[in-house]
Amino acid sequence: MKLRVRSELVYRFDPPTDAIYQIKVAHWPGQAVEDETLTVTPHVDFHEDENTEFGARTLRARLEGEVSVVYEATVDNGILKGLPPVTVQHDWNDLPAEVLTYLWPSRYCPSDQFGRFVEREFGDTTGGERVLAILKWISDNIDYERGVSDSETTAARTFIDRAGVCRDFTHLGITLCRASGIPARAVSAYAYQLTPPDFHAIFEIWLSNGWWLVDPTGLAPIEGLVRIACGRDAADIAFLSTQGSCELVRQSITAEAV
Amino acid sequence: MKLRVRSELVYRFDPPTDAIYQIKVAHWPGQAVEDETLTVTPHVDFHEDENTEFGARTLRARLEGEVSVVYEATVDNGILKGLPPVTVQHDWNDLPAEVLTYLWPSRYCPSDQFGRFVEREFGDTTGGERVLAILKWISDNIDYERGVSDSETTAARTFIDRAGVCRDFTHLGITLCRASGIPARAVSAYAYQLTPPDFHAIFEIWLSNGWWLVDPTGLAPIEGLVRIACGRDAADIAFLSTQGSCELVRQSITAEAV
Amino acid sequence: MKLRVRSELVYRFDPPTDAIYQIKVAHWPGQAVEDETLTVTPHVDFHEDENTEFGARTLRARLEGEVSVVYEATVDNGILKGLPPVTVQHDWNDLPAEVLTYLWPSRYCPSDQFGRFVEREFGDTTGGERVLAILKWISDNIDYERGVSDSETTAARTFIDRAGVCRDFTHLGITLCRASGIPARAVSAYAYQLTPPDFHAIFEIWLSNGWWLVDPTGLAPIEGLVRIACGRDAADIAFLSTQGSCELVRQSITAEAV
Amino acid sequence: MKLRVRSELVYRFDPPTDAIYQIKVAHWPGQAVEDETLTVTPHVDFHEDENTEFGARTLRARLEGEVSVVYEATVDNGILKGLPPVTVQHDWNDLPAEVLTYLWPSRYCPSDQFGRFVEREFGDTTGGERVLAILKWISDNIDYERGVSDSETTAARTFIDRAGVCRDFTHLGITLCRASGIPARAVSAYAYQLTPPDFHAIFEIWLSNGWWLVDPTGLAPIEGLVRIACGRDAADIAFLSTQGSCELVRQSITAEAV
Repeated sequence: MKLRVRSELVYRFDPPTDAIYQIKVAHWPGQAVEDETLTVTPHVDFHEDENTEFGARTLRARLEGEVSVVYEATVDNGILKGLPPVTVQHDWNDLPAEVLTYLWPSRYCPSDQFGRFVEREFGDTTGGERVLAILKWISDNIDYERGVSDSETTAARTFIDRAGVCRDFTHLGITLCRASGIPARAVSAYAYQLTPPDFHAIFEIWLSNGWWLVDPTGLAPIEGLVRIACGRDAADIAFLSTQGSCELVRQSITAEAV
Repeated sequence: MKLRVRSELVYRFDPPTDAIYQIKVAHWPGQAVEDETLTVTPHVDFHEDENTEFGARTLRARLEGEVSVVYEATVDNGILKGLPPVTVQHDWNDLPAEVLTYLWPSRYCPSDQFGRFVEREFGDTTGGERVLAILKWISDNIDYERGVSDSETTAARTFIDRAGVCRDFTHLGITLCRASGIPARAVSAYAYQLTPPDFHAIFEIWLSNGWWLVDPTGLAPIEGLVRIACGRDAADIAFLSTQGSCELVRQSITAEAV
Repeated sequence: MKLRVRSELVYRFDPPTDAIYQIKVAHWPGQAVEDETLTVTPHVDFHEDENTEFGARTLRARLEGEVSVVYEATVDNGILKGLPPVTVQHDWNDLPAEVLTYLWPSRYCPSDQFGRFVEREFGDTTGGERVLAILKWISDNIDYERGVSDSETTAARTFIDRAGVCRDFTHLGITLCRASGIPARAVSAYAYQLTPPDFHAIFEIWLSNGWWLVDPTGLAPIEGLVRIACGRDAADIAFLSTQGSCELVRQSITAEAV
Repeated sequence: MKLRVRSELVYRFDPPTDAIYQIKVAHWPGQAVEDETLTVTPHVDFHEDENTEFGARTLRARLEGEVSVVYEATVDNGILKGLPPVTVQHDWNDLPAEVLTYLWPSRYCPSDQFGRFVEREFGDTTGGERVLAILKWISDNIDYERGVSDSETTAARTFIDRAGVCRDFTHLGITLCRASGIPARAVSAYAYQLTPPDFHAIFEIWLSNGWWLVDPTGLAPIEGLVRIACGRDAADIAFLSTQGSCELVRQSITAEAV
């Protein structure tokens, strides 16, 4: 699917502080960036890196005062397909070495505490069926609601709260998959038809020798997702990290079909 | 310093389960493995991987019944030096991209909660001086004591408990460094003169364009540390991970000067 | 039902420490203590108090060395009935003032976090039906299993762990009832036919203008419960509290029909 | 000291909900209410109770729409004195039975986790000296700052955050006192010269056979405190509790010398 994505981030940095943006579309197999522009006002020389594993591209600079960052890109995200139930789960021994780390618990995903729950609730499933059962459970049991969670909310707390936003749904999904022995990691994305438009947090699991994207909120069609960054959980994929405080002035994100 | 390290791990796996060992000495600049042997009884064909970033080597297999794994190596760990106070801290923008991830919080190191504490307690220091001040604070305030912590204990809890083992000291040290804007990561090691002999957990920080090893427990001399694995926290560097349960039969670790 | 209850607690207090026992059968309407004896070896002059609200009786003394406390009583616990679904829940305004405190969260019962869960899961019930639905949910979702929880485990953690002992079942039951607007409090008891024999933790809720005892574990018949102490949660009803540490030598508890 | 206290609470209750106010000055030895008026608009018939232990007075009713509650009283709070260092700490055995409950942990005061910290930090003090050392530690280490804590913040978290408001200071003070074997409980109050004017949360400890009020924030002079309610922690002393949600319209609290 071909999409035109755009993010406009206007923040005030006072006092000056180092900042890291992760807003550029990832270089990832099957996802082609046809053109892109980055407009920064006032001018800033960003230091840009590309992660060799995820193709995520980070922009870093020391920022001062009000800075507007506008990123636009035309992307063909290829053919993204929903997770089929027939995908199989691999034993630890059959996983690529670089995938193992996504089995372990992380800051917002204490999967080590959920072994008994997943066994009780999803014990008769494995692989794609297990993940689809987890997604159905999340959909049946968690409300999409702003104001319940904050930047410190873990999946353990969302499991109790029964409500949260895309970030919380994703943390809970990752947690239940890892507790099931399925590698899972967080992905940030532009998302077609997401309402209201915003950056989206989704996750992907390793099954049948590949990563499969899923959206635990069900808010955006899978074929309209455009990858940005990737990591263990929200700690790795923030669209903006700053060493000191910063103040939101204005922000808008869009993703439209071309 | 030249050392002879040895670990003997005898565990019972019943029912059979996938297991991952991280016990081999790392391939790491300045650390030379002169010879090594791995003896597994009964015979097991391990799948071995070497991490391209850390040089950590993992052994994986499905194990059944009682399995004895004996690893022996002669290592020259080069010249390890204590952290000098003059080492400098880099701005985010001056860090190598692959180091950034060690600034973020992880499962056992919720550094996002300690910003005010480090500013209050260590606010007049930076770089090597900050790290040395953190190590002194840990030494002054935390007791080395078994039985206080368990496999779920985070640095936040150790900060309250005021006691723990090497793993807990390391998590707290990493947490306070990351909260100070200093990249920090966990390292597992063989340690000369550690009493009682065991695997050791230490950490390293990125200062003056390099990683510096420190031992927050002060139990082993820095020049006698031999690296095994490395990662965000204990979730990444376990010497033995298993999908199911396993039972300790017998275990011994030694590190002697040659 | 007439019962003969007995507890023998032998502990070693070294160094000497203040201790509080709550093992005597409560003076409570409908529960008649026909005879009782307390044998302490070596002799100790306990300071005894009776709580005016619960009829719980506490024994206090400074203890030193090995102390054996044997308590025996013959009790007619009256006619205890299971909770009928027709019992009604009162509005806050219709509750006795002294009952209000059992609506609020306590150390092990963070009921303030479970409002959305109880509404989602039990929203179509109220009063006795709500409590019975909660008890059924606990029975369906929590395993009775030793070794999962410890003395710090809260209901929030048991909700995730899906396993625990009578104390944990009781904390979770209290939490879900309070979150439902139903006053609930912890009760310690001797329990007929409990296997293995031990002190039991149960709880009671205020419905239809009275307290109703329920056993969330289902391990003991309601008619065989003999009340000892009562309070907000396990912090209030411990059978033995000590200021310093103490060491268990031997303990046995029995409750037999006469 | 003679004071004129006044609180005006205007809230909107939509949909209707049960509410409990604790705003009336307590009936407490040494504290004399010379006159008081309660003006509720529109008229509401409150159900009023007086707690026999604390003299706290609760007002309960089902409320609907916008309700204004204005309470005014002239109070002579007697002669409140700061805690003298010579006050002595009692062994458990020498405490009145009704005081024991304030030794145990509660929702926001997990004193069971702080035994090692108080021993390390305050180990050479006892009684009034211990409490004064705790108050000094809080004053030296915790910042008074809004926005750091919320209604779920426990003393464990404030200990890490190093910042909070009067409620958090009080929870931390109570926690460290209970961990020291000193009974401690939360008190809500009108406070002379508190800036900005608001309800105040303080605590009291049991030493030398009596309760002594202390203000861990140091924001109000001890002689200008007027007691309202009392309990284990904030769960018991809220000035307004509601079963459903309610919306603040306007609120002002004053305490002036007469």
